[in-house]
Amino acid sequence: MSASKPTPEWQPWKSAISDSDETTLWLRGHDATALMRTASFADVVFLLHRSRLPTAHERRLIDAILIAVSDHGPGSPSAAAARVVATGSRLAPEAAVAAGVLAIGDSHAGAGLACMQLIAEGLQLKRDENLSMADAAARILAATKERGARFPGLGHRTHSTDPRTAVLFDLAREGGAEGDGVAFIRAVEEAARRPVKPLPINVDGALAAVLYDLGFPPLFAKFIFIIGRVAGLTAQVTEEYTREKPMRIRIPVVYDGDPPKG
Amino acid sequence: MSASKPTPEWQPWKSAISDSDETTLWLRGHDATALMRTASFADVVFLLHRSRLPTAHERRLIDAILIAVSDHGPGSPSAAAARVVATGSRLAPEAAVAAGVLAIGDSHAGAGLACMQLIAEGLQLKRDENLSMADAAARILAATKERGARFPGLGHRTHSTDPRTAVLFDLAREGGAEGDGVAFIRAVEEAARRPVKPLPINVDGALAAVLYDLGFPPLFAKFIFIIGRVAGLTAQVTEEYTREKPMRIRIPVVYDGDPPKG
Amino acid sequence: MSASKPTPEWQPWKSAISDSDETTLWLRGHDATALMRTASFADVVFLLHRSRLPTAHERRLIDAILIAVSDHGPGSPSAAAARVVATGSRLAPEAAVAAGVLAIGDSHAGAGLACMQLIAEGLQLKRDENLSMADAAARILAATKERGARFPGLGHRTHSTDPRTAVLFDLAREGGAEGDGVAFIRAVEEAARRPVKPLPINVDGALAAVLYDLGFPPLFAKFIFIIGRVAGLTAQVTEEYTREKPMRIRIPVVYDGDPPKG
Amino acid sequence: MSASKPTPEWQPWKSAISDSDETTLWLRGHDATALMRTASFADVVFLLHRSRLPTAHERRLIDAILIAVSDHGPGSPSAAAARVVATGSRLAPEAAVAAGVLAIGDSHAGAGLACMQLIAEGLQLKRDENLSMADAAARILAATKERGARFPGLGHRTHSTDPRTAVLFDLAREGGAEGDGVAFIRAVEEAARRPVKPLPINVDGALAAVLYDLGFPPLFAKFIFIIGRVAGLTAQVTEEYTREKPMRIRIPVVYDGDPPKG
Repeated sequence: MSASKPTPEWQPWKSAISDSDETTLWLRGHDATALMRTASFADVVFLLHRSRLPTAHERRLIDAILIAVSDHGPGSPSAAAARVVATGSRLAPEAAVAAGVLAIGDSHAGAGLACMQLIAEGLQLKRDENLSMADAAARILAATKERGARFPGLGHRTHSTDPRTAVLFDLAREGGAEGDGVAFIRAVEEAARRPVKPLPINVDGALAAVLYDLGFPPLFAKFIFIIGRVAGLTAQVTEEYTREKPMRIRIPVVYDGDPPKG
Repeated sequence: MSASKPTPEWQPWKSAISDSDETTLWLRGHDATALMRTASFADVVFLLHRSRLPTAHERRLIDAILIAVSDHGPGSPSAAAARVVATGSRLAPEAAVAAGVLAIGDSHAGAGLACMQLIAEGLQLKRDENLSMADAAARILAATKERGARFPGLGHRTHSTDPRTAVLFDLAREGGAEGDGVAFIRAVEEAARRPVKPLPINVDGALAAVLYDLGFPPLFAKFIFIIGRVAGLTAQVTEEYTREKPMRIRIPVVYDGDPPKG
Repeated sequence: MSASKPTPEWQPWKSAISDSDETTLWLRGHDATALMRTASFADVVFLLHRSRLPTAHERRLIDAILIAVSDHGPGSPSAAAARVVATGSRLAPEAAVAAGVLAIGDSHAGAGLACMQLIAEGLQLKRDENLSMADAAARILAATKERGARFPGLGHRTHSTDPRTAVLFDLAREGGAEGDGVAFIRAVEEAARRPVKPLPINVDGALAAVLYDLGFPPLFAKFIFIIGRVAGLTAQVTEEYTREKPMRIRIPVVYDGDPPKG
Repeated sequence: MSASKPTPEWQPWKSAISDSDETTLWLRGHDATALMRTASFADVVFLLHRSRLPTAHERRLIDAILIAVSDHGPGSPSAAAARVVATGSRLAPEAAVAAGVLAIGDSHAGAGLACMQLIAEGLQLKRDENLSMADAAARILAATKERGARFPGLGHRTHSTDPRTAVLFDLAREGGAEGDGVAFIRAVEEAARRPVKPLPINVDGALAAVLYDLGFPPLFAKFIFIIGRVAGLTAQVTEEYTREKPMRIRIPVVYDGDPPKG
């Protein structure tokens, strides 16, 4: 019984992200009210994750990525999950948004994180074995194929050429931030070229490369996707609430299991 | 800054549900290992919520309700949400199940909770104003219509007659547990009868009436639905993982918004 | 059996939010790649919800609100929920973020939505009965008290004066967007003033008033909170992953239920 | 634009789990109303996942596992997450339960799934290389250590000896269902024995071994944990709603980040 068991001593949680007292809120040491007057939300996304404000160029890339992933229609898994939950629930809009976030897993939009991990791995291999960029890319691509996996960040089920890729790479180059990450993913794209069907770099691959060059860890590829997409998910849930009736979604199903017993 | 701010004193959380020490786990004071040898899961669901084990009759009703709501195909909002999340994520099965739980909101399966609240309200009104059951039911039904709402627990989008209703009522009567709750919802069904289209009591209305007569609060109507349906959701996610490819779900969409600018 | 049941005909979902073809993605008719080059994320949040780009002044207010709510430390319910899930799971960062979103319910940060509804109600009452602002505010405040509820958007558990309120109102006034919403919530604050303890307008009340004056529906008060806070939640989960071990969170508990049986 | 893009043809979803028409609901071909009269919920959990009803012995093991994992107090990550969400939200009980489910990740209770995978791997290795049970266990344990990981299913942060393990193994033996799974995990426990601190098989390891011997896939170890624990989560949320005020949870935090700027 608990009487005989000492209650574990409580240790306050530690955090270096924000602090507050009766009259002030600080975000990474910056007075939130000062930020509210002059900063943009992209600045604060960068600040919360990097403990400093971005340069103008870094801000442009953060804005561009957030915008690039903000919505892709109600048929994408995250928006579809949000709308299905919204059809069954009107009282808890946060539940619909959360269901959308849950769909941002390893298959849908998980490519950014996985791609950044492979970029880091590939560039490490390049350094360790003093390889050319093309050889490092070919090695990582071959290892991926050997595991029976597709290389994350290449190809798109809607776009034959993902229009967002070129813009991200242009913006990176204009600001001088195009580095080894972009070079590596381009080398992979080149190595993956097939006779009949190229697999162009999609938005996940492009943002992974750009974020690598900006110094972010792989986890941030998933998180910036979530932050941006939540804007679209809130619009999707609003549309479901205002244009549609509750319980309107009926997925047609064919049963192909055991026949009735007895 | 935190230096000038006293850390709020931590109060341990209090709970009367379970306790453990190095060698024993108690659920509401019952040794979990003894329960594991002789009790059923329905017993423990009852125990966790009522602080005592059920009678054989109460156990039958809990089992019957859990089974009644355990699955209704992949097209219901909860199963559809789970499968859409599963299509985008293979690494986190718990995320797919949780998305399914989130769809069990106020429209989908929320009827049980709302119906129990109206049963409690109706029977209070009956006592307060010394009404007949039929009059109390008619008053509550009229008040619901006035708010522009449908009476929760009547009608079903698939079943013209919900086959689960009669069984629950039979089981309640056989065990002598059919009480005012069942009588009230039947009076509402009678009052709601229309010339051309009756609105029969559905499983939500039936379980609400039975749970009311068993002494549960309205919140439990939602919770027993969730417990039962999670069994079906886990089967749905397993089927999605084993029969289907990642990202296979593509909801067809027609865009009907603003044309391209410029 | 399904053989005898016609499969319901599938209706494609309709959406006016975004559209895409093989080479282009449009958000409310705007080419996403053009937006990526020149717009900010706050622009796109506004665009997705209003179908037009904001003015510079509107953009400043959206940025200010997103920043104001972006983080409030790991002890707030949304961040605490995210970190507790993160302690039990490393494979699914999206699950931790989603749990944080789920805590943004009716008590935590739900005040913005509820406050906007009361502002709309109060200003309708003012028009309908030709009341002064002070009288309309007093009437709505009294009705809230009668229901035994606190007026949402007043008071804060950490801040005696919420520092974010004055900045939002300053920014609204500077841009000429301070309207009836701000006037109404100020009248409520005045009417709620008590001899010993004023209840100042908190950030939820301030953003509700400002968003009302910008023409948003109440639901958006919750959604802009979620969009902004997701930035903080991602930073909280990153900190949990990088500074702490799995399963480090142990909430101390005192059991006060039934003693062991037998 | 969508005009130039053919809408993808909708394929109805396929499912072998349940079917319904206007008057009947079938679960794996069994009439749900017949099950409601005579079956237990454990039967239906088994049926939904295995397409047949269990034997009496199999039912006892399913019940025992569901009961074993049904609750472990409010301080476990799943219950803590549910209660933190409940403190911020009263309108959406399903959101609190879902947050609890999300905490059932790879660290908290993920051990069952991981342990079953290692049991399967170990027994495959035993067959392939014609090893003794002890050697196969030692090989798998060594490989786990080499990856820097702990062997899932051994040790418990509360219990020095998990009381639920012996009961599960007793029940398995009594029914003649103790097979290679139990033998293998016992061999691992033996191999992991240290001079000063043994690492006894915990409930996750025990249920993994028993479920392996019952013929379930590893994924089911996670799912049976979720089904059982949802019973406890609903009791935890009910207790939070009925014993505590909204927003009562305040996690004490110490800020240790950057000092205020300027």
